[in-house]
Amino acid sequence: MKVHADLCLIPLGVGVSVGTYIAECQRVLDEAGLEYRLHAYGTNIEGDWDRVMAAVKRCHERVHAMGAPRISTSLKLGTRTDRAQSLQDKIDSVQRKLNGNNKQETV
Amino acid sequence: MKVHADLCLIPLGVGVSVGTYIAECQRVLDEAGLEYRLHAYGTNIEGDWDRVMAAVKRCHERVHAMGAPRISTSLKLGTRTDRAQSLQDKIDSVQRKLNGNNKQETV
Amino acid sequence: MKVHADLCLIPLGVGVSVGTYIAECQRVLDEAGLEYRLHAYGTNIEGDWDRVMAAVKRCHERVHAMGAPRISTSLKLGTRTDRAQSLQDKIDSVQRKLNGNNKQETV
Amino acid sequence: MKVHADLCLIPLGVGVSVGTYIAECQRVLDEAGLEYRLHAYGTNIEGDWDRVMAAVKRCHERVHAMGAPRISTSLKLGTRTDRAQSLQDKIDSVQRKLNGNNKQETV
Repeated sequence: MKVHADLCLIPLGVGVSVGTYIAECQRVLDEAGLEYRLHAYGTNIEGDWDRVMAAVKRCHERVHAMGAPRISTSLKLGTRTDRAQSLQDKIDSVQRKLNGNNKQETV
Repeated sequence: MKVHADLCLIPLGVGVSVGTYIAECQRVLDEAGLEYRLHAYGTNIEGDWDRVMAAVKRCHERVHAMGAPRISTSLKLGTRTDRAQSLQDKIDSVQRKLNGNNKQETV
Repeated sequence: MKVHADLCLIPLGVGVSVGTYIAECQRVLDEAGLEYRLHAYGTNIEGDWDRVMAAVKRCHERVHAMGAPRISTSLKLGTRTDRAQSLQDKIDSVQRKLNGNNKQETV
Repeated sequence: MKVHADLCLIPLGVGVSVGTYIAECQRVLDEAGLEYRLHAYGTNIEGDWDRVMAAVKRCHERVHAMGAPRISTSLKLGTRTDRAQSLQDKIDSVQRKLNGNNKQETV
C-alpha cells in the first residue's frame, strides 16, 4: 500500500530552536531512500506504507537519542485505491483547476 | 517504544456519514488488544509503537475493503523517554493543575 | 456557522511538562462559555465559529503571557450544513454502529 | 499577533476528487492578500492572526457554498514572541543545519 504522508515532528524540552532535530529527520528520510519535500510546517513524504512508517519511527528514535526527552508528532496519511498519484500530481491537479477557472473567467 | 496516539481517519468518496467506518476502526483497535478511547474528533490510543502502527495500517486496509476509495488520516504520536505516563495520567495532570490553582484562588 | 473543533496546543521553550499551560487553556474555554471536553491528546470544543476562534486566539495570548516564547497548535475544524450534530451525537453515532453490528453478529 | 499556519481542508460528500475545492481556497487566500504556498498535503500561510483566520472561515463558507455539505479541516498554527521569522526562514534554517553538518562530516 502506497502512502502520501505529511510529517511534523516537535521535540519538547530542548528549547525553541528545533531546526537541528528537523534536519536530522531529513537525513533519516534520505537514508531511507524515500521521496520527500520539506515545507515551512512539515515534510511531504511519498512511498510504501511500511517504509514510510519505519522512517517515522526512526525519526523519533534519533531525536530522542539527540537528547529530546519528549516528542509530539503530527502525521497525515493519505491512501487511495482508485488510482496512482504522486505528490507532484496533487499540486498539479490544483494548479490545473486554478488555471482552468481563470481562463473561463477571462473568456 | 511506547506511544500515545490520536487517530482521526476520514474516508472520502463514501458520502457524509462516516460512522460505520469509524466503528470498524474501533473493532480493529479492539482486536489488536490496544487501550483506546473514542472522543468526538478522533480516538486516543496507547500501546507499543509497532502494535499501534500495525493497527492504524489495518484500519486503512479495512476501510478501503469496505469500499472507501480514498482515506485521509490525521495521526498524532507522542513519545517520551523521561517517564512512563498513561492516557489517564495526562488528563489527571491537567485536572490537578486546574484544582490546585482554583484552591489557591479561593484561599 | 457552528463548528466542532479539536484543540491541541504545544508550548515550546518551557520544558517537557506542559500541564500548567493546558490547564490555563481550559480556563480560557470556560470563561468563553464554550462546551468543551478534555481528552488525552487535546480538547473537543463546540460552538459558534467566531467564539471558538476568539478563544483559540486567547489561548495563544495567555500561554505566551505565561512565558512560552513559541507555540505550535494543531486545530481540527468540522462544519456541516446538512444537519445539526453535537459532540456527543458524534460519539453516540459510532457507538450505535458498534452495537448494531455486534447484535447482528450474535444473531 | 503574526501566525504561520498550515491549512488542509477536506470536503466530505463530494466524491474523491477535491482539487476544485482546494483551488477555490487558493483564490480565497489570494483575495485576502496573504502570503501562501501550496504543498502536496496542505497550504502554508503567513500573516496577521485575524486576517489568516478570516480567510480560513471564508474557505469553509465558499466550499459549503460550492455544494460540500461537510468539511473537516486540519489547521496548524505557529506563533512566537521571541523573534520574527518568515515561512522561508524556517526552511532555510533546516537547510543550513543540513549543509553545516554535511560539511563537518566530510571534513
